[in-house]
Amino acid sequence: MSTSTANPAIPQRITGVLSPVVTPFKRDLSPDPVRYVRHCKWLLSQGCAGLAVFGTNSEANSLSVDERMMLLETLVKEGVPASKLMPGTGMCALTDSVRLTAHAVKLGCAGVLMLPPFYYKGVPDEGIYRNFSEVVQRVGDARLQLYLYHIPPVAQVGFSLALIERLLKAYPGTIAGLKDSSGDWSNTKAILDAFASHGFDVFPGSEVFLLDGLRNGGKGCITATGNINPAAIDRVYRNWQGPDADRLQAIITKTRGIVQKYPMMAALKACVAHWGKDAEWATVRPPLIELTEAQHQGLLSELAADGFDMPGLV
Amino acid sequence: MSTSTANPAIPQRITGVLSPVVTPFKRDLSPDPVRYVRHCKWLLSQGCAGLAVFGTNSEANSLSVDERMMLLETLVKEGVPASKLMPGTGMCALTDSVRLTAHAVKLGCAGVLMLPPFYYKGVPDEGIYRNFSEVVQRVGDARLQLYLYHIPPVAQVGFSLALIERLLKAYPGTIAGLKDSSGDWSNTKAILDAFASHGFDVFPGSEVFLLDGLRNGGKGCITATGNINPAAIDRVYRNWQGPDADRLQAIITKTRGIVQKYPMMAALKACVAHWGKDAEWATVRPPLIELTEAQHQGLLSELAADGFDMPGLV
Repeated sequence: MSTSTANPAIPQRITGVLSPVVTPFKRDLSPDPVRYVRHCKWLLSQGCAGLAVFGTNSEANSLSVDERMMLLETLVKEGVPASKLMPGTGMCALTDSVRLTAHAVKLGCAGVLMLPPFYYKGVPDEGIYRNFSEVVQRVGDARLQLYLYHIPPVAQVGFSLALIERLLKAYPGTIAGLKDSSGDWSNTKAILDAFASHGFDVFPGSEVFLLDGLRNGGKGCITATGNINPAAIDRVYRNWQGPDADRLQAIITKTRGIVQKYPMMAALKACVAHWGKDAEWATVRPPLIELTEAQHQGLLSELAADGFDMPGLV
Repeated sequence: MSTSTANPAIPQRITGVLSPVVTPFKRDLSPDPVRYVRHCKWLLSQGCAGLAVFGTNSEANSLSVDERMMLLETLVKEGVPASKLMPGTGMCALTDSVRLTAHAVKLGCAGVLMLPPFYYKGVPDEGIYRNFSEVVQRVGDARLQLYLYHIPPVAQVGFSLALIERLLKAYPGTIAGLKDSSGDWSNTKAILDAFASHGFDVFPGSEVFLLDGLRNGGKGCITATGNINPAAIDRVYRNWQGPDADRLQAIITKTRGIVQKYPMMAALKACVAHWGKDAEWATVRPPLIELTEAQHQGLLSELAADGFDMPGLV
């Protein structure tokens, strides 16, 4: 249990499976709050411990700051507990990151998952440090639980071990953990070995590494496929110390293997559209495009052959 | 002369040297409109044909949408002609790009210089096409002159020849040109060969390619070092068909070579701070950091040894 639970004002940390919730768009490409709330509630009903809304797989970087704030307020207003929410608030512009982070904290969110500023490449650790330091100081709220979002294949800018250590030392109790979407287990393992025993909660960015992560001090996973397969992934989390763990892990690894043969965000939405019998769900915002007809048929038939289902979605 | 000048409502296209204006910050990291206006007016007085405000070297991706709009309105209000302005308006979020572009057109700007959405990597041309198509249609204003901003070393996402051709065919008279910051002359040459004779205005992203560009149908250059060395670069532009052109080009290429040994944005600001006798100008916003003392001394002494100056800056 985190030491932070001693202070009732500081949110309880989320452990388990988090989904970076896909964001539904209407045909005019505006965000659809009704479908969004419904999907978030379905995810929580299926075993998601938390919702990492506004992640990469949420197409969050295709949303404006105001669109994100509107959606987050809608979720809370419609009864999704803020204690389950870990919104993405890391933007290219410091002032945007501060605005979104302060907004999330004020709403009572469990934490925020922050990308480093990702436009400028090859920036030194010192510059990334200053960005996060400014955010923490400007938000100036002891309730802030800040998770670092490490996804070098997309953001190109990431967190070195030395930078994590420096941030953790400067802001203990605020720097809460990290999502590692490097796809490189040796990196996840190095972070776990260095910081997992210091109240730093590490979440692999794919359920493929869920069991390995838990066995090395990880706290769960934050995974795209959590949008469509949350119950099976949560089953691994709940049984990770049991005799069946490796078998349960193999099942979710196989499903993940099917989905990630396809463009991820379009594939996730195609699944929600299909099993939810709601074709409009497949809409993505540019620069993404929906699956081709061949991809669509391939994905659905492979998943069906694997016995995949999304119970209760309709 | 562009055919678009036949319609008085459509802005006259800018040709010559454009500077991606560095953005001054106060010590609290907020943008400084007073220094900004002063620097823009100095650039125009020194031979800049236009100001590509909110470019990469403007740290524009470290500014919020509202901060950009405030600065652009300030420039126009303070007497910088909108006909000289080509602001950067390409954001990750379609809705932000539309908002900034419509705002710039409404203010009467000569054009906009648009990055593709740059967070998601490996997106297909179709997705980038849809992004630009949506922007053009949603802005819905015949005055819009849209320049594509190709800078793969930073944005990682760029424009193929096929994509340029498709956009130009779909929106003739609106898709006005391209800035090529690939740093790859063979790419610039291929774009010039394919499109320069179709009313498509190509600007290399460095003065190193200014003369080569002009000799192949280019319209000038949009260059970081235009912030500190505009008169000498403009001299090449004005004399490119004269007997002295190669010698004048060699002079500016040498100066560029000195500056680009250092982190570019911090180096530009260090020069403005030094020759303008205004130390606060050196401030950069995270994730950038200012030059180290050794870099600072090295840059200034190398430039001084080269006879470099910024006349009239104080």
